[in-house]
Amino acid sequence: MSKKNKDFVEKITAMEDDFAQWYTDVVKQAELVDYGLIKGTMIIRPYGYAIWENIKDELDRMIKESGHTNVQFPLFIPESWLQKEADHVEGFAPEVAWVTHGGDEELQERIAVRPTSEVLFCEYYSRHIHSYRDLPKLYNQWANVVRWEKTTRPFLRSSEFHWQEGHTAHATDKDAEIETARMLDTYADLVENYMAIPVYKGKKTESEKFAGAKYTLTIEALMHDGKALQSGTSHHFGSGFAEAFDITYLDENGDSQFVHQTSWGLSTRIMGALIMVHGDNRGLVVPPKIAPTQAMIIPVAQHKEGVLDKAYDLRDQLKGLVRVDIDASDKMPGWKFNEYEMKGIPVRIELGPKDIEKEQVVLVRRDTGEKEFVALADLEKRLPELLDEVQQNLYDKALAHRNEKTTSVTTMEEFREMLEEKGGFLKAMWCGDEACEEKIQEETTATSRCIPFEQEKLAETCVCCGKPAKEMVIWAKAY
Amino acid sequence: MSKKNKDFVEKITAMEDDFAQWYTDVVKQAELVDYGLIKGTMIIRPYGYAIWENIKDELDRMIKESGHTNVQFPLFIPESWLQKEADHVEGFAPEVAWVTHGGDEELQERIAVRPTSEVLFCEYYSRHIHSYRDLPKLYNQWANVVRWEKTTRPFLRSSEFHWQEGHTAHATDKDAEIETARMLDTYADLVENYMAIPVYKGKKTESEKFAGAKYTLTIEALMHDGKALQSGTSHHFGSGFAEAFDITYLDENGDSQFVHQTSWGLSTRIMGALIMVHGDNRGLVVPPKIAPTQAMIIPVAQHKEGVLDKAYDLRDQLKGLVRVDIDASDKMPGWKFNEYEMKGIPVRIELGPKDIEKEQVVLVRRDTGEKEFVALADLEKRLPELLDEVQQNLYDKALAHRNEKTTSVTTMEEFREMLEEKGGFLKAMWCGDEACEEKIQEETTATSRCIPFEQEKLAETCVCCGKPAKEMVIWAKAY
Repeated sequence: MSKKNKDFVEKITAMEDDFAQWYTDVVKQAELVDYGLIKGTMIIRPYGYAIWENIKDELDRMIKESGHTNVQFPLFIPESWLQKEADHVEGFAPEVAWVTHGGDEELQERIAVRPTSEVLFCEYYSRHIHSYRDLPKLYNQWANVVRWEKTTRPFLRSSEFHWQEGHTAHATDKDAEIETARMLDTYADLVENYMAIPVYKGKKTESEKFAGAKYTLTIEALMHDGKALQSGTSHHFGSGFAEAFDITYLDENGDSQFVHQTSWGLSTRIMGALIMVHGDNRGLVVPPKIAPTQAMIIPVAQHKEGVLDKAYDLRDQLKGLVRVDIDASDKMPGWKFNEYEMKGIPVRIELGPKDIEKEQVVLVRRDTGEKEFVALADLEKRLPELLDEVQQNLYDKALAHRNEKTTSVTTMEEFREMLEEKGGFLKAMWCGDEACEEKIQEETTATSRCIPFEQEKLAETCVCCGKPAKEMVIWAKAY
Repeated sequence: MSKKNKDFVEKITAMEDDFAQWYTDVVKQAELVDYGLIKGTMIIRPYGYAIWENIKDELDRMIKESGHTNVQFPLFIPESWLQKEADHVEGFAPEVAWVTHGGDEELQERIAVRPTSEVLFCEYYSRHIHSYRDLPKLYNQWANVVRWEKTTRPFLRSSEFHWQEGHTAHATDKDAEIETARMLDTYADLVENYMAIPVYKGKKTESEKFAGAKYTLTIEALMHDGKALQSGTSHHFGSGFAEAFDITYLDENGDSQFVHQTSWGLSTRIMGALIMVHGDNRGLVVPPKIAPTQAMIIPVAQHKEGVLDKAYDLRDQLKGLVRVDIDASDKMPGWKFNEYEMKGIPVRIELGPKDIEKEQVVLVRRDTGEKEFVALADLEKRLPELLDEVQQNLYDKALAHRNEKTTSVTTMEEFREMLEEKGGFLKAMWCGDEACEEKIQEETTATSRCIPFEQEKLAETCVCCGKPAKEMVIWAKAY
């Protein structure tokens, strides 16, 4: 076995020992990301990008099927325009990267590299929406955005990241409300049914909502270390932006009305969830539905006559049925096993001289490590079935973990104890007062993740102040 | 007919009267682009973006099928890194948008918003290429880039534009040479066979090559006004960047060698070619292979019983066969005819009560305006055939125009006369001296477009200085 640089698979830190280091190791060893020259920027490498492209393609299909069209707006926003909506600029200005020079010339006005694009879409809508016939406008764009962050980690928090941002305008508040909910459901569909990650759906509290929004809906997932990750958000703007940007339409009676807007985004951050929900101490685990390679054929004793031919035949036979690849390099099978386990390829297909003799292959699942011998004649039936089983098992495992780590508490003592002991999500009643929300966060470092749609009545009183409770909130330490 | 803002199709300027204004009118009236808040940036609207997405999808497929993988590199380049390759920085620095502040803090070093990404890929390759086994690296990315331009026009020259940029590293100069030629062929395939635009393939002269390249290959297309548009370029870097960035590998003998690199790009600029090659005085004309909607069903007398039902049935029947849509709005058919002619939709399907009675539809071609009556029973056969005919006719027309506007000249007098009289491409012999190239450009404003691969021997001597000719060059005024 060669000891050359790239032929050597380094060990990764065990997640029990140092979860943050495990994450960094997986990102590096599975060849997902490398660091850019500017601190906090990332290079998404071929394998990382192929996974993101699959996520992107699924979401893009969903977005288009629900009547949205893609557009492409500029990267640049003049400073004066960013300031039009007060809450919005307050939320984003501290993180803006500013362009001040074009070539040798100093610009008359500073330009923001977009941290998000509400301003640009609003300006456009103010010029293009005239009548109720122009509504709704259902636009989406895939774009890079920049937020100048102090502390960064690949995928989770980077100075530049990639996302889609939907921006819609509607005739009524109700229409915008329906859109906001519909796009949250789209995100939940993607994350649960394609990425095999269960989520809680709910509304952000006032203090956690998007800068400029009337309210924000969110999906929240639980990572392996018991911390939460906000995985997609959908904002109802009411007519706040419309008033700031003067976006009006004439209704059927000829009266001028403000439009009602939404925006919603899902970013490369979701790759962090993929890693931290399904990964284990052997590396990444990719759900079959988004895996660039679903099954990797590894010839065993490939120098023996007929093995490679048969392996290539098998590849050709399975192409079109599943996303299959073959590694016929001269590396040892053991090295290849490790490599594709590290990359989280859902199923490995081993094929050696003995298998050929017996007209069978060996299938090895990445998620459980289970082996099965399958007759070649049954493979076209069995392999897709097995991929479905892996997909389902990943979801079931993640759901069991999430549920096991979700605890209902009714006192602050319990809150602190459970957070310390188990981490994860804590359900607790809340009076609705921001003072309690702040106090809990200060005392525990947990933040309110959402006011879940599925409410329970755990107690009559707020977990913090003891006053009458208004609703149940889900809390967690979060990324 | 309603006179509301968006229901009113404005006339466009005739191209004979003012070609530049015709272009601007088409871009606006066909709803391709709108202007961004920063001068020279553009908003690509839904219809414009849908066309670009089709071009992108075809090219992305070709790029992947030829073994390349997509990646995503950062938007930002530190100034010191941009300066590593002398020719490169000289070529791009005057057009760089500089970021100087992150939030409230002034940065220690200025950051360039990428005008192109050679620097970033080189830095990465210098860390990731070790052995001949790591080669070739065949990377591509779809990205936005910024070049601070003084004079801008939608698609043709914009401060921010969108493109793919391929960056590859190879073991030998020959391998890089093959790659450079292969990707130029890929561009020619896309532009000729999907966009129906004939191109001349050739090499740029030294003075026109990419900043930092050993040589640049190009495809050149002719616009309707007789001006050329560079439509895609592929650069061979030799080992120049490898030496500047120290990108080496150990060959099979264990000796250290520099890699040999290429880069190649095709941008949203190609949308300008689409407009200016196929468009006419009724608006845009989109070749069927890249048309978001290939056939638009327009019900006639749709208030009559059964018409709309039948039109929707037809839409459902044709779905999956071609990209079909229906306009069942309450606008007048004449308005709709104009609208979809403006948008260049290849075929219009008219269906009225009489047609239903006769079990037929009327097909109207956008390119020629020809009408034909087709029995409903034959439509599934005839419509795809007709789309092929439109595609072929657009190519044939563009080719005839290009050929008619390509003239061979042997004296400067002829050169000036023909350029004045006919415009278009001028073929002329050249001694290879840059002084002649400059002189021709100064005197005529035509630039050398390429040294075409298909050489002819028009004369023994240079068209400019009369010294022995080295090769034939194609000249034109260009965008």
